[in-house]
Amino acid sequence: MLIDFYELTMANAYFLENRTDEVAFFDLFFRHVPDDGGYAIFAGLETIIDYIETLSFDDDDIEFLAQKQIFDLGFLDYLRQFKFTGDIFSFLEGSVVFPNEPILTVQANIIEAQILETFLLQAVNHESLIATKATRMKYAAKDRIILEMGARRAHGATSSNLGARAAYIGGIDGTSNVLADQLYGVPSGGTMAHSFIQLFDSEYDAFAAYAKHYPDNCTFLVDTYDTLKSGVPNAIKVIKKVLLPTGAKNFSIRIDSGDLTYLAKQARKMLDDAGLNQCKIVVSNSLDEYLIQTLLQQGAPIDLFGVGERLITAKSDPVLGCVYKLVAVNKDGNIDPKIKISDNVEKITTPHYKTVYRIYDDSNHAEADLITVYDETIDVQEPLTLFDPHDTWKTKTYNKYKIKEMHVPIYNNGELIYQKPSLNEIRKHTQTELSTLWAEVRRFEHPHHYYVDLSKRLWVIKQEMIEQNNR
Amino acid sequence: MLIDFYELTMANAYFLENRTDEVAFFDLFFRHVPDDGGYAIFAGLETIIDYIETLSFDDDDIEFLAQKQIFDLGFLDYLRQFKFTGDIFSFLEGSVVFPNEPILTVQANIIEAQILETFLLQAVNHESLIATKATRMKYAAKDRIILEMGARRAHGATSSNLGARAAYIGGIDGTSNVLADQLYGVPSGGTMAHSFIQLFDSEYDAFAAYAKHYPDNCTFLVDTYDTLKSGVPNAIKVIKKVLLPTGAKNFSIRIDSGDLTYLAKQARKMLDDAGLNQCKIVVSNSLDEYLIQTLLQQGAPIDLFGVGERLITAKSDPVLGCVYKLVAVNKDGNIDPKIKISDNVEKITTPHYKTVYRIYDDSNHAEADLITVYDETIDVQEPLTLFDPHDTWKTKTYNKYKIKEMHVPIYNNGELIYQKPSLNEIRKHTQTELSTLWAEVRRFEHPHHYYVDLSKRLWVIKQEMIEQNNR
Repeated sequence: MLIDFYELTMANAYFLENRTDEVAFFDLFFRHVPDDGGYAIFAGLETIIDYIETLSFDDDDIEFLAQKQIFDLGFLDYLRQFKFTGDIFSFLEGSVVFPNEPILTVQANIIEAQILETFLLQAVNHESLIATKATRMKYAAKDRIILEMGARRAHGATSSNLGARAAYIGGIDGTSNVLADQLYGVPSGGTMAHSFIQLFDSEYDAFAAYAKHYPDNCTFLVDTYDTLKSGVPNAIKVIKKVLLPTGAKNFSIRIDSGDLTYLAKQARKMLDDAGLNQCKIVVSNSLDEYLIQTLLQQGAPIDLFGVGERLITAKSDPVLGCVYKLVAVNKDGNIDPKIKISDNVEKITTPHYKTVYRIYDDSNHAEADLITVYDETIDVQEPLTLFDPHDTWKTKTYNKYKIKEMHVPIYNNGELIYQKPSLNEIRKHTQTELSTLWAEVRRFEHPHHYYVDLSKRLWVIKQEMIEQNNR
Repeated sequence: MLIDFYELTMANAYFLENRTDEVAFFDLFFRHVPDDGGYAIFAGLETIIDYIETLSFDDDDIEFLAQKQIFDLGFLDYLRQFKFTGDIFSFLEGSVVFPNEPILTVQANIIEAQILETFLLQAVNHESLIATKATRMKYAAKDRIILEMGARRAHGATSSNLGARAAYIGGIDGTSNVLADQLYGVPSGGTMAHSFIQLFDSEYDAFAAYAKHYPDNCTFLVDTYDTLKSGVPNAIKVIKKVLLPTGAKNFSIRIDSGDLTYLAKQARKMLDDAGLNQCKIVVSNSLDEYLIQTLLQQGAPIDLFGVGERLITAKSDPVLGCVYKLVAVNKDGNIDPKIKISDNVEKITTPHYKTVYRIYDDSNHAEADLITVYDETIDVQEPLTLFDPHDTWKTKTYNKYKIKEMHVPIYNNGELIYQKPSLNEIRKHTQTELSTLWAEVRRFEHPHHYYVDLSKRLWVIKQEMIEQNNR
């Protein structure tokens, strides 16, 4: 029942118009990368599958809708039997994706296709947003360990749970959220809050008690009273008196306020002077990719980052704006492309049932994506010329190149035909995908505009439809 | 199990230190209003109550934690029996709240208090954020109807469901999300998407079909092909030919792209020229309080606003940063205040078990909030002098004033003693609360800084603790 009301009013109208057997194609895509980034990571596919596998309307739902007194009783009966029977194609979860290419395509009768819309968009928009943000933070941290600790600032339970999963796909190393571990296997961890230290007679006593109970993995929060005068000296004392005698090797201090660069540098010096080079420094406090980058540029000796609200809400730009647009109808096997014109030129859709090829150069760098009509093929023995769909005189010809078709079949006639990978496989796939990107695509400031082109045939179809509409 | 891992490591340590009976006070508060606003709306209390009423650790949870091999078996047994047995005081849900005042206070043994932390913060941070944002949008719209339609851009299911509820508390009039209606009673509604129009042979046919099936509540989406050349003229035709003959009175057009001011003005003229003054105009497309204000300042003749991503994610500032801090311990009935010092001065907490009074002037305008030690009373027969806690020479004396204690008891010894109001009662409470604010507190640009002061007694306690720490 997590569905926009208009999906149901439209579906009811289709039902009353006897159009339940009409099959249409819908594309899910976005127009802009958040934070003006150069790429996004597709996530949410597993959530979509779990949703479709359990999608149904029970008696309570039907009764609730009946009370609205605008739905036909026959339609409500139809909903009672509802089951998704269509096809879905999509990129693999964890893939790098770009604006204006179909990330996921649904072929289904128009009622089913419409009923999926809201949830599909929510899952992809949310999870891709967080996975993408996570890759940016990890990139800024130059692969230092990053822990996600944003549950308390997340937008509700799903935001924290699926958010932690998406962050892990994007390369984050662990989460504070125990439920994300229990549900999805994102490694969870954590140590102490300021309250723990306040509840003991002294900071030293608090650290010593913690070290006694957790000698194998100890992080001392050093900023409750005064980081350099009290916190770090007490941590050093406890490490030497309590931890080292047990043979402990894995310990760190955490700085959660103040000037993180200054404090990290001073703390590093104090630790090193005490012979504790092995003690790591963790910092946190409203960090994101920009602050992480600045801290490291200033030479702050940081080993781990804790990130909270700015990852779990993607604070600097908290919306990935995927849309779900009708692109074709299937009339007795004939695929009839559809277009949506708009006063905002960028909102004009690319019609037709399509697929996406990624073009790689010799060194396995992704060079461009090419959207084609679904049944077009590319002969890699022949040179491939791409052109800019707006400034068509801009062309580029590839002589030696590889291609990969990005869409894989997920559902066929309502049957799940896709083998769900493990979370760690998805995470690894993201790393592999990122490794094919030029650094120019990954940078934060004015990233290189990655080309997403249309095949000649598709471009002609689109132009003709725009012109036809203008007549 | 939606809990930060460190709550469990701390709790386990308290258990092993035989401190399970120690009682402490924790305050939940925020330091800044999002969007640099002048106030926030407290929401999430009902979610917290639902959580506490069902809070327990089942066998699967215990087994999961046991596998981590860092928790004491006795502690895991303790968790298996876990039940909240403490006290909670808070503002009423829907109340206006300000920075640095305790919105909610927990008195419980330290394990229980710690275990609640993550969820309490998440609920209040998320729901208050959205409720606050909603009041801003409604204020900008000068009480025109606003519909929430952001489910597709929400951060997961809870974000859309509880977000719609919070938006409704803040004054939004309805939602597109059917589940928010089913779960919480937020009125849901909706009409058609662009795909509906594309699926018919013509825009006229699509409008006519919709009007036939929904004569009582019809909104025509007019921007699929060309708003002024095609959409509005077709809507006018269908209204005249199909709707008016049925006696329909409730219909509108919706513009979802392009220059909304220009298109709304032109459409209004076309509708009026056709004698359809009663046809309303709905606009949508990434609206927030700032854009709504601009549209109305330009004289756009808009009757209803549809808002999506910028409400459901609070896009312009998507984090309310409530924290949960230890402020006192209860040692055999003696309340011992606790403080957290910080290198960031604003992160220094206000110690002690406290309560909050709101001071109103003769005309029922809220003038200031006064935080006192829990057992302080105010004699309204006597003049009341407040002073700025930072610049203590700034004082203001009230001779004629009213006061209201803002905290109400929610839990007593683990028992829910609060009668949950209905959603509409909470929503009405918010309207009443907002009516006590000066317009200067509600404006978006540099709102008046509402005073939240400390009683003399509390101020002295805090200063002494800061100085003691500095010695």
